[in-house]
Order: sequence, then C-alpha cells, then structure tokens
Amino acid sequence: MTQLLKVQNFTVSSDGFGAGENQSLERPFGDADPGAMMFWAGATASWPNRTDPGGSRGLDDYLTRDFAHNIGAEIMGRNKFGPQRGPWHDHEWQGWWGDEPPFHTPVFVMTHHVRPSFALSDTTFHFVDDEPAVVLEKAREAAQGRDVRLGGGATTIRQFLDAGLVDTLHVAVAQVQIGAGTRLWNSPDELDDRFHHDIVPSPSGVTHHLFWRR
Amino acid sequence: MTQLLKVQNFTVSSDGFGAGENQSLERPFGDADPGAMMFWAGATASWPNRTDPGGSRGLDDYLTRDFAHNIGAEIMGRNKFGPQRGPWHDHEWQGWWGDEPPFHTPVFVMTHHVRPSFALSDTTFHFVDDEPAVVLEKAREAAQGRDVRLGGGATTIRQFLDAGLVDTLHVAVAQVQIGAGTRLWNSPDELDDRFHHDIVPSPSGVTHHLFWRR
Repeated sequence: MTQLLKVQNFTVSSDGFGAGENQSLERPFGDADPGAMMFWAGATASWPNRTDPGGSRGLDDYLTRDFAHNIGAEIMGRNKFGPQRGPWHDHEWQGWWGDEPPFHTPVFVMTHHVRPSFALSDTTFHFVDDEPAVVLEKAREAAQGRDVRLGGGATTIRQFLDAGLVDTLHVAVAQVQIGAGTRLWNSPDELDDRFHHDIVPSPSGVTHHLFWRR
Repeated sequence: MTQLLKVQNFTVSSDGFGAGENQSLERPFGDADPGAMMFWAGATASWPNRTDPGGSRGLDDYLTRDFAHNIGAEIMGRNKFGPQRGPWHDHEWQGWWGDEPPFHTPVFVMTHHVRPSFALSDTTFHFVDDEPAVVLEKAREAAQGRDVRLGGGATTIRQFLDAGLVDTLHVAVAQVQIGAGTRLWNSPDELDDRFHHDIVPSPSGVTHHLFWRR
C-alpha cells in the first residue's frame, strides 16, 4: 500500500504567500491577517480547531473533513511550530498548538536546532535536522502504513516539491493580497507539468486547487 | 454526539431520475446506462469498487473518499438489493453486491417481505418492514454512535426526505437524460427551503449538489 505525502487545507493569498513578513509570538501569520486567510476552514463543521457545535457541511467541509483521514504523521517547518529563530532558549515553551494539538500523531519539526522530543496529549513532537527525503522516511515509518501530511509553511512545501516528494496537494487561494512573506508560488499553474490540477471555486469565496501526480 | 443520516455519492440524471424503468437482474439501472451515470465515481482513486490501482485524486475523489468515513450502518430500498418484486422465491440469491459487498457495516433493506438476516464478509443484511423513522432508529443503534448512510434508490431517499429525517445529501447530477424511472426531484432547488445548498461543477462533467440542514 502506497503511503502518500499530502498537503491539506494549506491556504495562500491570491499573490501566492502562505504568511506575511514579521512573524512573532503574537502574529503567527506575520503581517497577514489569519482571519482573511482561514475563514473558509473555520466556518466548517469538521474544522479540527472548532470548539462549538454547528458549522457548514458543504464543499469546504469535505476538504476539512479529510484532514485526519488515514494520516499517520505530519511534517512541518520550524515556523509552524513557533516564531523563534536560531538556538532554542526556552524548552518550557512547547509551541503554538496548546495542550491538545490538532494533529493526534507524531509530528516532525524541521529545524537546524534539534531539541528533545515531547508529547502533548496524543501528539508527539520530534525535531529533526535532515534533508526532506530523510525526514519523509522517518515520518513514513512513524505513520505505520498510513499517509503523511506535509503541514507547511510555504518554504517547507517548496523544499519537498523541489525534491519531487509530494503526491497530492490541496491549496486554497483566498481573495486577499499579502505583498511579501513566504511564497508558495507565483501562480498555481507552475505545477501543471508534474501534476493533474482541478480548479474548484467555492461558494465561500476561496478557490480550491487540487493536485495529484501525473 | 449527533448521528447524522447522510446521502452520499447518489447520482441522478439531469432530468432528476436515479434509475430508469424496467429494472432487471441484468440491468440494475433499468433502461438507464449505468456507465453514463457513475463514470465520475468509477474514475476516482477512492471508489469503493475499484479493483486496479490508479485513479484521480481531484474533486470527485474527495466525494468518494468520504463514502465510509464515520459511517456505521446503511439503509437501502429493496431495489438496491435486487430486482425481485413481491415475495422472495430464492433465498440462495444474496443480492447484487457479491461476496465482498462495499458496505462493511450492517445494512437495513426496506421491504414488505422480510427474510432472515445474513452476512457476506463484514456486511450483514437485515430486512425490515417498518416506516422510515423506525428503520432509522434501528440503523442508529447498529451504527454504535457513528453516522448512517442512506443509500438509495430515489424512492427511498424521497421517503426519508418527506419524513424530515435527512441531515446531509450529496447528489451528483450527470449530463444524461433518462426520461422515465424513479425520480428524486424535478429540480435540486426544491430542497432549498429546508437545506443549505452548495452547487459545485466538477471538471469531470457532473455537478455536485451538497445539502445540509438549515
């Protein structure tokens, strides 16, 4: 059984950025407005961070509903874990994701500054300083036959795309411009030589781009 | 936790029919061409009846991928089980679905002619002569907290819609006319007074209609 590497529910601006400049503890998306990016997902019944009942069950919900489906591990860049740069100064701080992170699997954080693994609820964070192919090998082993989610940010997804390791991508394009930051692409069409590509406008206003390997 | 009653991947013609007239053992869709109805689903990687590897992983695949997600039981009309009418004459014949039916849960077949339950692999068929609300109660209990799929055909879905029991529907409209048979609707808009409604044209040529309760 193939273990896919999948990008899911990753949102970029109409000018191709996953986050703005000047990321900080208070501003995980930097100068970009997280609400303007992620509103489409937060409105769905299946959004993993939803705390109250209700939510939509239309097209956007099929995308968020698939978030954990057959996923056994996640790979993320350091900036999705936290805003710090360089050596860690505070091992007490355990990332942006709270006591009950939405991953519920092993998570591999890519960083040049490794630190000891730790668990929060049923999510375990591992810190690895390896090239993408090696990180993927570790994540696949941890996933025990299930697929691996490539969680972002844009820089991390680019690394895996450039190494030819990504099997499927779901990227939502929001109708907001950021102007500068971490870029996924200049245009979604850049991937068309290597991927099939469905373009699906959603009633919510975002456009879903669904790619799978040719 | 709410147990939803869900219609999934149900396909109708552009004139609103789920199957044509003259259903028989050889022609489960009657005078309608099953290929012209179900091609969109059969082309996806996640189609439950797929036997070879490959298949698309775009929009249509999100719909078929969701088929078994959190589903604990199915309800179907007798004509989805087999073409016979009236009393059963042959208990040896165990339905259209082969030795390895794609349901993998208890299945409740609605019929005025009950017969003993039997299992094929991990699917168990039960035969019930009850009104929709009672059948749903039995299916919910069998589903053990998970959701219940309402499998069709059109007549059965209409019964549950008319009783106000359906929570979500995914109906794919194929660009084919049947002219006569079992009708789901005259137009998808008929449900708009009771349901939110996303209309999503697929690159494959079908249009997905996604409904959830207001």
